[in-house]
Amino acid sequence: MEQLSRLAGTVRPGGRTARVRASVLDATQDELVEHGFHGLTMDQVAAKAGVGKTTVYRRWKSTAGLVADLMNELANQSMPHADTGGVEADLLANALSVMEALNDDRLGATFQAVIAAATCDEQAEQALRAFYLRRIEEWAIVVDLAVKRGELPEGTNANEVIRAISAPLYYRFVVTREPVTLAVAEASVARTLAAARAGAFVTTPD
Amino acid sequence: MEQLSRLAGTVRPGGRTARVRASVLDATQDELVEHGFHGLTMDQVAAKAGVGKTTVYRRWKSTAGLVADLMNELANQSMPHADTGGVEADLLANALSVMEALNDDRLGATFQAVIAAATCDEQAEQALRAFYLRRIEEWAIVVDLAVKRGELPEGTNANEVIRAISAPLYYRFVVTREPVTLAVAEASVARTLAAARAGAFVTTPD
Repeated sequence: MEQLSRLAGTVRPGGRTARVRASVLDATQDELVEHGFHGLTMDQVAAKAGVGKTTVYRRWKSTAGLVADLMNELANQSMPHADTGGVEADLLANALSVMEALNDDRLGATFQAVIAAATCDEQAEQALRAFYLRRIEEWAIVVDLAVKRGELPEGTNANEVIRAISAPLYYRFVVTREPVTLAVAEASVARTLAAARAGAFVTTPD
Repeated sequence: MEQLSRLAGTVRPGGRTARVRASVLDATQDELVEHGFHGLTMDQVAAKAGVGKTTVYRRWKSTAGLVADLMNELANQSMPHADTGGVEADLLANALSVMEALNDDRLGATFQAVIAAATCDEQAEQALRAFYLRRIEEWAIVVDLAVKRGELPEGTNANEVIRAISAPLYYRFVVTREPVTLAVAEASVARTLAAARAGAFVTTPD
């Protein structure tokens, strides 16, 4: 799974400040899942987290600030890149982690809510972009390793390969609203790899 | 462009009922673009369209009903599939029509709003899915023609090829929130074609 479905904050070390943050982000995710971004309020998050309202307002400023910090934390807890020794298995691990995250009730609803929020709130948009750029960078390593091993052509754009693995899954998840199945994940890997092997991801350096 | 940016309803024949519908759908799109789905109200659409509220409530029932009919009309007015005689040029025409629609201020904002609406409203979700399945079916014809001409392998799944052309564009548009450039559209065609030529879109019949 791309990241833990429920934030693991309550068991992590770090004292009161870290515990407050974990409670607030967990409550933010609960509220997002239940009511969406338009139904998210600072007061309800504070109440659910058992934290004073002034603390929440002072530290996170706005509901968009809560969403940004939640996405930051989800990125921190997301699965690091695989390293199986083979590009096909590594990319399949990537596709499966995305598929499982989207199909997880809580995480899937979180992504839906933040994707919706990003269409009308600039801070949410930046948080969403930052989350995915971090995930892409993390997994791009498997493509660079494949190039070093001679499995993919020199000059293959690693970030673009990782975007291409995710794109068909998200296209179904948020655009055509079709199921993101194992067959979809496997096909994405097979098609992306076929194109990459044919040199279609070789780009001139930026 | 995938479809006209502004609905062409006011110049189309069809009498009063058709004119009322065109005005109401145009007002619906205006309001969606300006306020998003959460800011869309039946009363404001009626006022902007210059149509009685009871007419709007009777005919469209809800704001989701307005959005569903708008998407239906946008699909009606969307660009039919290309037929250049070559698969690469046909698929590029498809990618460019998607790119231009997403980058059109009014249409792009309409898609953003409906994609956001679909995350929290089942009727909007169905309308969105129906729109894209119609667009995919329309353009899948170019892939079937390419198979007949021997440009792509027998058994190539035409709908999947068309999904694959759009997916990287929408992934940037709604997920990573990155620009959908000409380079992105061209790369999508090149990569999808490379995979299709390698047989990666050949599927067993459903």
